[in-house]
Amino acid sequence: MIKGFKEAAVRCGIKKDGLDLGLIYSEKEATVAALFTKNRVKAAPVIVSKIHLEKTKGRARAIIVNSGNANACTGEEGIRDALSVSEAVAEALGIKKEEVLVASTGIIGKRLELKKIKEAIPDLVKRLSYDGIEEFSKAILTTDKFPKVSSFEGDGFRIVGIAKGAGMIMPDLATMLCFILTDIKAERETLKEVLKKAVDQSFNKITVDGDMSTNDTVFLLANGISEKGISEEFEFGLKKICTELSEMIVDDGEGSTKKVKIIVKGAAKRSDAKEGARSVANSLLVKTALFGEDPNWGRIMAAIGKAVSVVDQNKVDIWIDDIKVVENGKGKGNEDVAKERMKKRSFSLTVDLKKGPYEDWILTCDLSYDYVKINAEYRT
Amino acid sequence: MIKGFKEAAVRCGIKKDGLDLGLIYSEKEATVAALFTKNRVKAAPVIVSKIHLEKTKGRARAIIVNSGNANACTGEEGIRDALSVSEAVAEALGIKKEEVLVASTGIIGKRLELKKIKEAIPDLVKRLSYDGIEEFSKAILTTDKFPKVSSFEGDGFRIVGIAKGAGMIMPDLATMLCFILTDIKAERETLKEVLKKAVDQSFNKITVDGDMSTNDTVFLLANGISEKGISEEFEFGLKKICTELSEMIVDDGEGSTKKVKIIVKGAAKRSDAKEGARSVANSLLVKTALFGEDPNWGRIMAAIGKAVSVVDQNKVDIWIDDIKVVENGKGKGNEDVAKERMKKRSFSLTVDLKKGPYEDWILTCDLSYDYVKINAEYRT
Repeated sequence: MIKGFKEAAVRCGIKKDGLDLGLIYSEKEATVAALFTKNRVKAAPVIVSKIHLEKTKGRARAIIVNSGNANACTGEEGIRDALSVSEAVAEALGIKKEEVLVASTGIIGKRLELKKIKEAIPDLVKRLSYDGIEEFSKAILTTDKFPKVSSFEGDGFRIVGIAKGAGMIMPDLATMLCFILTDIKAERETLKEVLKKAVDQSFNKITVDGDMSTNDTVFLLANGISEKGISEEFEFGLKKICTELSEMIVDDGEGSTKKVKIIVKGAAKRSDAKEGARSVANSLLVKTALFGEDPNWGRIMAAIGKAVSVVDQNKVDIWIDDIKVVENGKGKGNEDVAKERMKKRSFSLTVDLKKGPYEDWILTCDLSYDYVKINAEYRT
Repeated sequence: MIKGFKEAAVRCGIKKDGLDLGLIYSEKEATVAALFTKNRVKAAPVIVSKIHLEKTKGRARAIIVNSGNANACTGEEGIRDALSVSEAVAEALGIKKEEVLVASTGIIGKRLELKKIKEAIPDLVKRLSYDGIEEFSKAILTTDKFPKVSSFEGDGFRIVGIAKGAGMIMPDLATMLCFILTDIKAERETLKEVLKKAVDQSFNKITVDGDMSTNDTVFLLANGISEKGISEEFEFGLKKICTELSEMIVDDGEGSTKKVKIIVKGAAKRSDAKEGARSVANSLLVKTALFGEDPNWGRIMAAIGKAVSVVDQNKVDIWIDDIKVVENGKGKGNEDVAKERMKKRSFSLTVDLKKGPYEDWILTCDLSYDYVKINAEYRT
């Protein structure tokens, strides 16, 4: 718990089963830093939250979240629906509607079942509690297998983060919702700055399927109760929480059996390091090889050659954890050892281009039968 | 058959079973137009064929192809191996080594089994026949389920194309080998021009898994025997052959059960049409929905929003064949009808952005359990 914040969750009946409506309430007006999807198709809750934050100049008292329906591609009606949910919450809490932020996750293209949500709001408000984070964390899940919560206790302040995400995961942002609460005191601009820094090194460094959602949202609410300001320790804690949550998302990647850190170093250009790592991380052939525990480094070379502008194929080294499998572009013939290492749930895969000083990384998962199963049958 | 060309195939033992070594022989020196992979990691046969074509100024007498081993990421030794194969073929045929082009397809990162290839060459040469295309077309397959041959008979000339390809398919080029033989007479430069035009509208318009190979090659050999020059009819026939072969590759896409033409029209920019179509075609969520016969158009919207620079989400129309499922960004609620249509093996998926005059398309396939199976177990 974070002093001054209450949370709650109920089942309103949008999802087939389980909790599907969550609420965060801040007793004091909180400063908000927010980051949204860069997808040009944006869901209604993203649009409405942006409008509200503009009106309040970055302040809020509550966040209402439903799972099971993304309220995306629902046109003007979708926006009216999201507004209407925020109004109902505001009324029940006795606050202004623009002080209510909204988020949704689930199926795209279906109108929200407003009646179900509105009927559930009185009960939801009644259930608000200082210990509601666990329940709230469950209400925001869709194909996720487990709730994702991470917290940090600093010198006189606390931070807690709650996230959801399992598929449609790709920078920027990963497809996900994330709510971070803290009792520090901060200006909106600086809060956004530190949030962006933390997100760039965490949520923007994971990919499950290379797809980008219409609903991605990170809200950071600071209620100021601790009277502590932004400090190095706060930045450290915030980054730690974002990193832990993003790793949980990859761990929970739809159908995933492996969590793999792809590192590209020795790049001649910054963009080569970034694009090279992303290309390897999103290659279906690499991802299926990870699933098959096959050190098929030829596919890694092909993915690098596709994306990187400066590469000498006779210089490249490739490592699986600490096992060098390719030296100067040629296999070392130790694939048996490498294959053994790939049996682990988590390992790293490093490509050294030996062409310059730049390095970047990204976290990915494998592509399994279950990914296909989950996504071919999601709506059936 | 094409007058003046002979083909043959044998099993030399690189693949687990079946024919794995093919030869094309031109009785007359042929003019060659060639297109190669844009991957910066290039296989040895690509490098060697380029060198040979430079030396001969675009002329050749023979092409030797092996399947089962791509001879990629094999360093200097790989290049020496490819050269050595071309020498052996040249010797057996009594021609110059630079008149022999080479191509390989299969596993990356493994040295060629030179001894097996060389031992098979005398028999291969002995088997050369005017009716060897069928055998040759089988010798170049890897995970392909069927051989791919297409031919065209024009006024006084003929063209035949033979291709392989099933995975690692993405422009430019798709991962594939393609050999086109004709008896027309042409200069190298004009021949290359018409080949490029045909390939841009066929092989560069297909994607199976978004991966780009190290070995992609298209060779067009014109031996001049018909005395006919390049004509509109030739261009038509060439495009027809390339289109048929590229459709066969998508039909044979690893594990694919659907062949889907993705069309993006009404784009404000040419690049929006192209990138939008590619984004939809390569989206794992779209591809698994195609496999699940699920008209999950929200995923299409998300893939468009990720890639297209100018989009008004409240204007977009989406069609599955002739069934409009989305109008002005909203579902029409006729998904049952659309789902029925998706049971076909082949259909189109059109996104109309209603923002400008540009249109582009790409051919893709679905992502099935079998794709994962084939690629997780390829080497085991």
